[in-house]
Amino acid sequence: MDSLGRQLVVELKDCNADLLNDLEFVEKVMLEAAQAAGATTVAHSFHPFIPHGISGMVIIAESHLAIHTWPEYKYAAIDIFTCGNTVNPDIAAQYLIDKFKCQDPSILELKRGVILVGGNLKFKAET
Amino acid sequence: MDSLGRQLVVELKDCNADLLNDLEFVEKVMLEAAQAAGATTVAHSFHPFIPHGISGMVIIAESHLAIHTWPEYKYAAIDIFTCGNTVNPDIAAQYLIDKFKCQDPSILELKRGVILVGGNLKFKAET
Repeated sequence: MDSLGRQLVVELKDCNADLLNDLEFVEKVMLEAAQAAGATTVAHSFHPFIPHGISGMVIIAESHLAIHTWPEYKYAAIDIFTCGNTVNPDIAAQYLIDKFKCQDPSILELKRGVILVGGNLKFKAET
Repeated sequence: MDSLGRQLVVELKDCNADLLNDLEFVEKVMLEAAQAAGATTVAHSFHPFIPHGISGMVIIAESHLAIHTWPEYKYAAIDIFTCGNTVNPDIAAQYLIDKFKCQDPSILELKRGVILVGGNLKFKAET
């Protein structure tokens, strides 16, 4: 079944807490993850919170990456949303798992925008 | 069960195509949706794509909102990710459904960051 977008809902538990609270590091690895996946970065914005935690997003020509970190729980919530066939979000997920030294990752994959065309699902073979 | 974050995965089908392709409008209603939900906007960024479609994000102190539109399919993919008890993402979802004149919305709700504390799930009554 084909869809307009593909979204990885990435739950990273048991990460390195110091890395999750390092604004410069989080921004750097999120941008590198986008690049590793083959995406083109359009804009990005990262912000630290008091007393800890970072939120950030990267808009890519093929959709977006987002992250929110809770260093106190060694946890990060990441979304990797892509469209088209030129970007591989799996590569971005693996890159971030490695960089945050995550020992307990979980990933759900969602298809976004499943559209009926002429009353039927689009299948990949037809695209 | 308690969680660190709450994410609405919002599929908006059968929207008004012209509105989905209006950069100024999309940015305005996304910022208004964040405000209506009780969120504090930290940063935002919206971009048009050729030949059509808009991607945008709003980072809020309580996490983020993101949108990608496919006017040619009258479809928008929206995520509303919140944390804490002061923001109501349902209000943002309803606001966007109304503003895009969506005739066919679907919403999945995800709990992000379900953490064991002392070997047990945190329940809301305990927080």
